[in-house]
Amino acid sequence: MRTDIAILGFGVVGAGTAQVLEMNKEQIAQRTGTEIYVKRILDLRDFPDSPFADRVTHNADEVFGDKDIKIAVETIGGAKIAYEYTKKALSAGISVVTSNKELVSTHGVELLKIAKENGCQYLFEAAVGGGIPIIRPLYRCLAANKVVRIAGIVNGTTNYILTQMKVNGISLEEAVAQAKQNGYAEANPAADLEGIDAQRKLSILSTIALDGTYVAPSTINAQGITEITTDDIEFASKIGCELKLIALFENKGDKPSAYVAPAYVSKESLIASVEGVFNAIMVEGNALGESLFYGQGAGAIPTASAVCGDIIEAAAGDKMPDSRLWEDKGQAVEAYDDVKASIVVRAPEIPVTAFSEYDTVHLDGAVIVNSIAHKDIEHLIAGIPGAKWMHYLK
Amino acid sequence: MRTDIAILGFGVVGAGTAQVLEMNKEQIAQRTGTEIYVKRILDLRDFPDSPFADRVTHNADEVFGDKDIKIAVETIGGAKIAYEYTKKALSAGISVVTSNKELVSTHGVELLKIAKENGCQYLFEAAVGGGIPIIRPLYRCLAANKVVRIAGIVNGTTNYILTQMKVNGISLEEAVAQAKQNGYAEANPAADLEGIDAQRKLSILSTIALDGTYVAPSTINAQGITEITTDDIEFASKIGCELKLIALFENKGDKPSAYVAPAYVSKESLIASVEGVFNAIMVEGNALGESLFYGQGAGAIPTASAVCGDIIEAAAGDKMPDSRLWEDKGQAVEAYDDVKASIVVRAPEIPVTAFSEYDTVHLDGAVIVNSIAHKDIEHLIAGIPGAKWMHYLK
Repeated sequence: MRTDIAILGFGVVGAGTAQVLEMNKEQIAQRTGTEIYVKRILDLRDFPDSPFADRVTHNADEVFGDKDIKIAVETIGGAKIAYEYTKKALSAGISVVTSNKELVSTHGVELLKIAKENGCQYLFEAAVGGGIPIIRPLYRCLAANKVVRIAGIVNGTTNYILTQMKVNGISLEEAVAQAKQNGYAEANPAADLEGIDAQRKLSILSTIALDGTYVAPSTINAQGITEITTDDIEFASKIGCELKLIALFENKGDKPSAYVAPAYVSKESLIASVEGVFNAIMVEGNALGESLFYGQGAGAIPTASAVCGDIIEAAAGDKMPDSRLWEDKGQAVEAYDDVKASIVVRAPEIPVTAFSEYDTVHLDGAVIVNSIAHKDIEHLIAGIPGAKWMHYLK
Repeated sequence: MRTDIAILGFGVVGAGTAQVLEMNKEQIAQRTGTEIYVKRILDLRDFPDSPFADRVTHNADEVFGDKDIKIAVETIGGAKIAYEYTKKALSAGISVVTSNKELVSTHGVELLKIAKENGCQYLFEAAVGGGIPIIRPLYRCLAANKVVRIAGIVNGTTNYILTQMKVNGISLEEAVAQAKQNGYAEANPAADLEGIDAQRKLSILSTIALDGTYVAPSTINAQGITEITTDDIEFASKIGCELKLIALFENKGDKPSAYVAPAYVSKESLIASVEGVFNAIMVEGNALGESLFYGQGAGAIPTASAVCGDIIEAAAGDKMPDSRLWEDKGQAVEAYDDVKASIVVRAPEIPVTAFSEYDTVHLDGAVIVNSIAHKDIEHLIAGIPGAKWMHYLK
C-alpha cells in the first residue's frame, strides 16, 4: 500500500520532513503497513539539487486537485498563504499536518471544524516543543486527568540567549547577535524575544488543557526578555534560581489563567536545568501529578520527527473525535491584572513590614511574595526605593 | 453511551483506578463520549467499606461470561492467576489493560497474539514508569524514528534508597529499612534491589524499540544495588556524578544491547538530578534526538492515571495494528560479555599505562574507560591493587 502526501513549503522543516521519511522509510512502512510517498512539493522556488526536484510544483491545483493525495504537510509558516492552503486542503478532504503555531493558535477553531466536516484531520504535534511529544500525550495519555498546571520553556531561542548571558556574562544585545550568528535566532527575532512565539504555543496547550475551550493568544499576557539585564541574571544565582522565560497555565481555582513571563525558577525544579535551545514542559494532572517532557524544541530533523509522527497518524485514517474540536466561548482565562502570582521583590533595603499582608519567604536581599494579584504589584513596591520584581516559580 | 469494565484485583492500583475514574468522570465522559462504568470487581476479599462494595464478586464467570464487559483491568500482579485471567479475558474478546510488568515481559508475545486473534487489545502503559507516558509516545510519537538508545531510571524504590544513602549518608541496610517504613519498598524488596523489576521494564521498552522483536527478561543482564556502599556513593560526587540504577538499551552498532546496572551518571545529564521515587526515561531517536520523560514512577493514583488512559483507548474500540504484535526470534540482544560499555575504574594508584589500548578520560583518582567489552573488565583491572569498577553514563 502507498499513501501519497504533499509538502507545502519546502523550507527547513518541509525538507527535513522529506528527509526523515526517506531516512526511516523501512521502519515507517513496517509500523504503518503503508509506504508514505511524497508525490508533490508546492513551493515558489525550484530545488534543482534536491533528490525531490522532480516532485516540485508551483501550481497549487496539482496538490489540491489530486485525488491521490491524502495528506498535506503545511510547513509554510505564517497565517496568510498557509491559512488559505490549509483551508483548501481540508475542504478537499486532505488531512493537514503542521508545525505552524501561528496558524493553529490563530485559526485553530475554524480549521479543526473544517477538518471534522470533511472527514479528515488537522494535526499539529510539531507546533509546540518541536520534536518533543507533548500534544499527543496531553490528548491521549492524560485523557483521564484534569490538567491543573502547565509550566514550560517553549522557546528555544530565548532560552539559548538567557543561557549565553549567564554562562558568558554577556549582555542581551551580544547574546542576540551570537544567537543569530549560530542560527538559533532569525534575522528579526522580535516574535521570540517579545514572548509572542511562546504566547502562541501556550494558547495551543491551554486550549487542549481546557478540553477545546479556545484560549486566544490575544488573551494571554506576554512579557518577553527584552528588558532582561546581566544584573537580573546574576541575581538569579544569588537566590538559588535560574532566570527562564516561562509559559504558565494554571487551572486550580475558579478560573484558569495563562501568561508568558520571565521568571526566577528555583534550582530545585527540573525546568531550571534546561539549557540552550532545549525545551521542557512540566504538566501537572490531578491524577498523574507532575510529569516532564524534555527535548529539542526546534531544529529541522527533530521537528520533522514530530511532523512525521502526525503523518503516520493521519495515514491510519482514523476519524477525528468530536472532543478534538475547539470552541471559542470568549475570554476563557482570567484577566491578567486579577491573576495571582508568586514574585520575587528585590531592593537595596526592604522594610520589614512591607509585605505583611502576604505570605512571604525572606531571602538574602529579596523577598518572595506569594499569591499577589498582578494589579497590586506596582502599588506594593512603589514605596520601596530601587525595588524591582520578577515572577517566581518553585 | 456506557462502557462496562471489570477490575481484576482490587489492591492499590486497582482501587486507585476506580478512584480516578470516579474523580474525573465528567472529563472522561466528555472526551470519550462514553461513561466508563466499573461493573464488576473480582477479588478474593470483600470490601464492605468501599463505595464499590456492591460490585465485588469472587466468581470469575461473572466477569468473563458477561457479554457487557468490554474491558478488564488486570491489577493482580505476578504471572500466575493474572496470566490465567488475562488469557481468559482476551480469549473472550475482552480488552485487558494492565500495570503488570512481570506478566507483560514474560508472556507478552502470547498475550498480544491472543488479543489480536480475538479482535481486542492488550495495553500496558502503566507497566513502565508508573504514570509517566512512555509506551504510547514510543509507539505513536516516535513512530518515524529508529530508537537508538533508551536510558532510564525505572525503579522508584532503588532510586529512593540511593537518594537516602546520599542525602543522609546512611548505609544500604538503613536506607532499605527506611524505604519499607515509608511505604516505598515492599516487605521483601528483592525484585527491586536486585534489578529484576528494572529488567522486566527494560524488556518491554527494548521489545517496543525493536518493533516487536521480543527481548526476554532472561536475556537482559541485571545487576542491582545490593553491593552498593556509602563509599561508592561518596565517590560519585567526587567525580561530578550521581550513582543511579540504570536500565540501558542501545541499538547503534550491529546488534542491540540491553542491561540493568548501577552507574555513575554525569551531573550534566538530566537523569542525574532525578531523586527519590521519581522515574525518568531518556529516549534517543535517530530523527528526534534526545527526549526525556519524567514523573512519578509509582504510587496508586499516578499509576491509575496511566491505566485509565489505556481504558479510554480501549473504549474507543480501535483495532490493534499488526505492528503491535511481538515475536520471539530467540536471543535478540548481544550477549552481555560482548557488550561494550563505558566504565569508571578507581584505585589508590592507577598505573599510567594501564588502559593504553582504550579511549580514556582521566579524573581525580579514577579513569573513565570507554568502549570496553564486559568480558575484558575483570582481566583489565586484575593487575591494579584495590581497583573497583562501575558503569559510567555521560
